[in-house]
Amino acid sequence: MSALSSTRGRLVGVGVGPGDPELLTLKAVRALQETDVVAYFAKLGNGSVARRIAAPHLRAGTVELPLGYPVTTEIHRHDDAYRHAIAGFYDAAAEEVAAHIEAGRHVAVLSEGDPLFYGSYMHLHVRLALRYRAEVIPGVTGMSGCWSQAGTPIAQGDDVLSVLPGTLDEDVLIRRLMQADAAVIMKVGRNLPKIRRALAVAGRLPRALYVERGTMEGSHAIPLAERGEEPAPYFAIVLVPGWEGRA
Amino acid sequence: MSALSSTRGRLVGVGVGPGDPELLTLKAVRALQETDVVAYFAKLGNGSVARRIAAPHLRAGTVELPLGYPVTTEIHRHDDAYRHAIAGFYDAAAEEVAAHIEAGRHVAVLSEGDPLFYGSYMHLHVRLALRYRAEVIPGVTGMSGCWSQAGTPIAQGDDVLSVLPGTLDEDVLIRRLMQADAAVIMKVGRNLPKIRRALAVAGRLPRALYVERGTMEGSHAIPLAERGEEPAPYFAIVLVPGWEGRA
Ligand SMILES: C[S@@+](CC[C@H](N)C(=O)[O-])C[C@H]1O[C@@H](n2cnc3c(N)ncnc32)[C@H](O)[C@@H]1O
Ligand SMILES: C[S@@+](CC[C@H](N)C(=O)[O-])C[C@H]1O[C@@H](n2cnc3c(N)ncnc32)[C@H](O)[C@@H]1O
Repeated sequence: MSALSSTRGRLVGVGVGPGDPELLTLKAVRALQETDVVAYFAKLGNGSVARRIAAPHLRAGTVELPLGYPVTTEIHRHDDAYRHAIAGFYDAAAEEVAAHIEAGRHVAVLSEGDPLFYGSYMHLHVRLALRYRAEVIPGVTGMSGCWSQAGTPIAQGDDVLSVLPGTLDEDVLIRRLMQADAAVIMKVGRNLPKIRRALAVAGRLPRALYVERGTMEGSHAIPLAERGEEPAPYFAIVLVPGWEGRA
Repeated sequence: MSALSSTRGRLVGVGVGPGDPELLTLKAVRALQETDVVAYFAKLGNGSVARRIAAPHLRAGTVELPLGYPVTTEIHRHDDAYRHAIAGFYDAAAEEVAAHIEAGRHVAVLSEGDPLFYGSYMHLHVRLALRYRAEVIPGVTGMSGCWSQAGTPIAQGDDVLSVLPGTLDEDVLIRRLMQADAAVIMKVGRNLPKIRRALAVAGRLPRALYVERGTMEGSHAIPLAERGEEPAPYFAIVLVPGWEGRA
């Protein structure tokens, strides 16, 4: 009887942190060392970041299961066709993971940052966590990596912190920014010009900080007002620190 | 010439994560192993959590610098007297830390969760980071620990996530909760009855989850609606998951 077939399989969502390989937790390292299968979502242009962080900790012979997003650039993301394609992709990915679990294997699904915070892992979690043993290992989020790298306290005391996806419509962003004490804008990329306009209208541009590739090689932080108009990469964030009445 | 006096001192804010000692990052472990002095804020009733997580990683002979909050329970926290006492406390704490740095020592200041996210460390950071070399090591936040432990995806897609201190006035909480897609309410403690009323008025009580001591010994998560009226401990949080139109 092999160790594998005697153990019931399980799912582990593993947060690998914001980018610096040293920002893995001890618990994530142990999960990577113990896993039989390592799965990760592969997105055009940035698919390998989580895998690169995890790789040094995997045993020789660990099975790799890349889950490649379907190319959907031609369909608008609010279309039913898009929703349908994505849901079908997650269904199929969940079944690939389930087949390994059924065979008695441990499957670690990697997530950049924290798995349940705007991460793709949660699409697998909601499909599999009721069927199999499942555990989530939290990770340091991208935003924590970014404000730490910039040395910027983000929120204190009675501050309300709003996390805003840069994909929101401009008028929604403006309204949300006007109400926020502190704000983090994720998913910057090609939304940057819109985000900058919204911050300007809301009167928050002077305090806004742009952080690219936080805690990774080649990272940098500058006031957004001083940044040029060129599009931002996938790993970019905008921080509007709160705590204006410091004590 | 000793190793200490030849090295210029520095400040390191170290996030120790939400409670589980395995949720320390590799980088935090290294900082703890290398530090000469370990400082931590000591609050009545929970002062030792960060120190307990860090202790196994410290070298023998590491100097301990507990920073004990002044007892201010008799003064209301919006009073000028309170602000004054607290600012004076942080000034004095910063000078204690500075004295070690001036003597060429590395000082690690421990923070539960992430240092720059509603943490006391930031009061030292703003006082010392321009005078000395300073680095912040991000940590897994308490909220990430809580939603991971509960297995609850917190936000996805276009969700706005609002982090709300439970210290806010009831009408402010209600308004913020009505606008939020997803919400995290921190600093629950004796604010719990007010938080519960605000959630009920905002129509969010049915989705609200109460998590106590996330990732620590004796932790548990239950729907807030099913929890009794007894006051919550310091390490307690309320989660209102977003992502209502799951796909
Ligand atoms: C789909 S979300 C995933 C968030 C991730 N689960 C986390 O906990 O940070 C991806 C967005 O997070 C932000 N992000 C994540 N890591 C980052 C980093 N190291 N530097 C800058 N932005 C980052 C970017 O805005 C990016 O578009
Ligand atoms: C002053 S804030 C500090 C937050 C910390 N810097 C962080 O990153 O999580 C303290 C509040 O965080 C929340 N909290 C932190 N850790 C927690 C845990 N393990 N379980 C439940 N709540 C926690 C509680 O609401 C607590 O009142």
